[in-house]
Amino acid sequence: MSLIVQKYGGTSVGTIERIQTVADKIRQTWDLGHGVVVVVSAMAGETNRLLDLAHRMAAAPDRCETDVLVSTGEQVTIALLAMRLKEIGVPSRSFLGHQVRILTDNVYSKARIHSIDATEVTEALERRQVVVIAGFQGVDPEGNITTLGRGGSDLTAVAVAAAVKADACEIYTDVDGIYTTDPNICPDARKIYKIAYEEMLEMASLGAKVMQTRSVEFAMKFNVPVHVRSSFSDVEGSWIMKEDKGMETVVVAGVTLDKNEAKVTLKGVMDRPGIAARIFGALAVESINVDVIIQNVSEDGRTDVSFTVSKVDAKRAVAAARVVAEELGGFEVTTSDNVAKVSIVGVGMRTQAGVAARMFKALADAGINIEMISTSEIKVSCVIDLRFAELAVRVVHDAFDLGVSP
Amino acid sequence: MSLIVQKYGGTSVGTIERIQTVADKIRQTWDLGHGVVVVVSAMAGETNRLLDLAHRMAAAPDRCETDVLVSTGEQVTIALLAMRLKEIGVPSRSFLGHQVRILTDNVYSKARIHSIDATEVTEALERRQVVVIAGFQGVDPEGNITTLGRGGSDLTAVAVAAAVKADACEIYTDVDGIYTTDPNICPDARKIYKIAYEEMLEMASLGAKVMQTRSVEFAMKFNVPVHVRSSFSDVEGSWIMKEDKGMETVVVAGVTLDKNEAKVTLKGVMDRPGIAARIFGALAVESINVDVIIQNVSEDGRTDVSFTVSKVDAKRAVAAARVVAEELGGFEVTTSDNVAKVSIVGVGMRTQAGVAARMFKALADAGINIEMISTSEIKVSCVIDLRFAELAVRVVHDAFDLGVSP
Repeated sequence: MSLIVQKYGGTSVGTIERIQTVADKIRQTWDLGHGVVVVVSAMAGETNRLLDLAHRMAAAPDRCETDVLVSTGEQVTIALLAMRLKEIGVPSRSFLGHQVRILTDNVYSKARIHSIDATEVTEALERRQVVVIAGFQGVDPEGNITTLGRGGSDLTAVAVAAAVKADACEIYTDVDGIYTTDPNICPDARKIYKIAYEEMLEMASLGAKVMQTRSVEFAMKFNVPVHVRSSFSDVEGSWIMKEDKGMETVVVAGVTLDKNEAKVTLKGVMDRPGIAARIFGALAVESINVDVIIQNVSEDGRTDVSFTVSKVDAKRAVAAARVVAEELGGFEVTTSDNVAKVSIVGVGMRTQAGVAARMFKALADAGINIEMISTSEIKVSCVIDLRFAELAVRVVHDAFDLGVSP
Repeated sequence: MSLIVQKYGGTSVGTIERIQTVADKIRQTWDLGHGVVVVVSAMAGETNRLLDLAHRMAAAPDRCETDVLVSTGEQVTIALLAMRLKEIGVPSRSFLGHQVRILTDNVYSKARIHSIDATEVTEALERRQVVVIAGFQGVDPEGNITTLGRGGSDLTAVAVAAAVKADACEIYTDVDGIYTTDPNICPDARKIYKIAYEEMLEMASLGAKVMQTRSVEFAMKFNVPVHVRSSFSDVEGSWIMKEDKGMETVVVAGVTLDKNEAKVTLKGVMDRPGIAARIFGALAVESINVDVIIQNVSEDGRTDVSFTVSKVDAKRAVAAARVVAEELGGFEVTTSDNVAKVSIVGVGMRTQAGVAARMFKALADAGINIEMISTSEIKVSCVIDLRFAELAVRVVHDAFDLGVSP
């Protein structure tokens, strides 16, 4: 018998009928004799309804009270699900974040989990109860309710799985797993049945939307095997787990596309020590994350520097760079939205040579110019013209034979 | 400076705009330098919406989980009110039932309050924060959320006022006080500015709807002065308080009408010891509360017994009485819905003679027959024909000059 944590998102519990379906699904697992802990989100639309109330109530809703408000969304779901489980004969009990002492810091609306006290959960499991826990919420050391921000329920599920030492953490969602790339772009994308934490981390931060990086980080830290699967079917999904021998034989696990970056170019920057520190220091002060950076070869003591930032930060990045440009006697600052970042990810890259070259060749063969390159031990990213984004994904996906069953 | 507990019901916080009005009202009190604790209900309609979800989810919704569900109603209100207060410059903090440790038993959906830990409330008040507490909810010794049943937010307010030793507990509602009788029946009904706890208790149990008996009991036990007033105006309401000298001079404080009782008549009951015990024992087993009882003079060893019960219990009372009738060799059981109970209440009755006689005469002068009579130290109740209910209220109200300013 195993101990399984199951997480159901807002769409999976979006209506009374869907919650009933989820209850039936839980019973199947419980009937097999497994211990089951369930983490649920608010019913789809509920969090936004509550946030709307807050914004009608106050121009700048207090963050602490906003957390008190929106955390009711998950509370409604756990109560409804637990009563449904009891109705169909499955002993069950609901727990709020504070009732399992999901202790967080006090950064309201995006708190970080410090610890979980699993005592009561374990006791309930020993009584063969299905434990239903509100996702997305915790409590700070003073006893105030906190919420964990976007993807918070996944994080709750992984953290609970770590705390109770679950055999698996199943994330039920509206897709049936993680794919080698977005099937909407590349029809021959295949489901990845096993992916290493590190690969998933890179893919998540490079644009794959299935799971947030911090949930993957948490799973990796505590070695929780995560199974991403569909709440609308019973087919096997994707396992996110510790790297194993088999994974190394796969050079590239997946191809990602990120269209949410903008490129900022600084032309005619004085090429002398300390200049880069001034520029990127100014961005850091503004809490702007810089992704890829390139610097051209210097000519006549001047050089060009380009970097990418998230599109929402682009304006502020330009403004900050212009302030530095004025102080230092002038360089030109321009920005472009017309870029996309295509990346390949795979732990196999560590042991195989020529992977980047194969990607560059595939792009070149398709006539796609590479504007910027960034690499790490297990990924290669190329910034290209936005117009070629989908084409680039397809040719790279092909170049590594990702459409073919291994 | 005083310490004041204010309670606002569902109608008073029924919309975003009304919550904003309530926040302004709270600020007025706070601006004067008073300490303010606010207890709020769920927004009007919200509790029913949640209960409806529960009944769509399960044929017999688990009571414990139902309390987890419906308690979100008050949680939404405290968050919205506290954020509004902060928005208009009033430091404030919301507290859920468990956060002020409103400890109750575990009778879900109608729990009783055992104790309140006022430490955090007092600390917040010392910081000049307005404390906003969710009404209607508590927590049992195991940490499960409980709710207090109908009128629960009033009870929370009175209990909190007792715990923090407030100078007054203001109950804001949609009427502006307690009246000598229902103004819809008797246009010259007057507002009662001061009423003794005992009088209010009797009036509440005799049909006055403003406050539930258990909230009044709690206020009496801990000597909390309660001020019932309108949330839509600033006029002085009614004070429910300890009996004082002035109250004794008023013979009758108010006249109440209760149309929710039915009369059950047993004809030809054997008049011998133990029979009454058999009959009313059978009703007690069924948890049926009996109100007024009369027994006629015996004739030929047989007598008639009549009693009143709540209309909803009438059928079960008749069935239980018939079982006894069969066992004892037969008496006839009939029931009538066409009765009303008119009562007068006043602590002045203790020291004044002839009060009941004055009521009987008033009814007789109006040609109203009295079917049953019940008295206590501070009340007289007459059961009469339903057709004369409103007329009876008016003539009794007149007989004690209640329409005239004292």
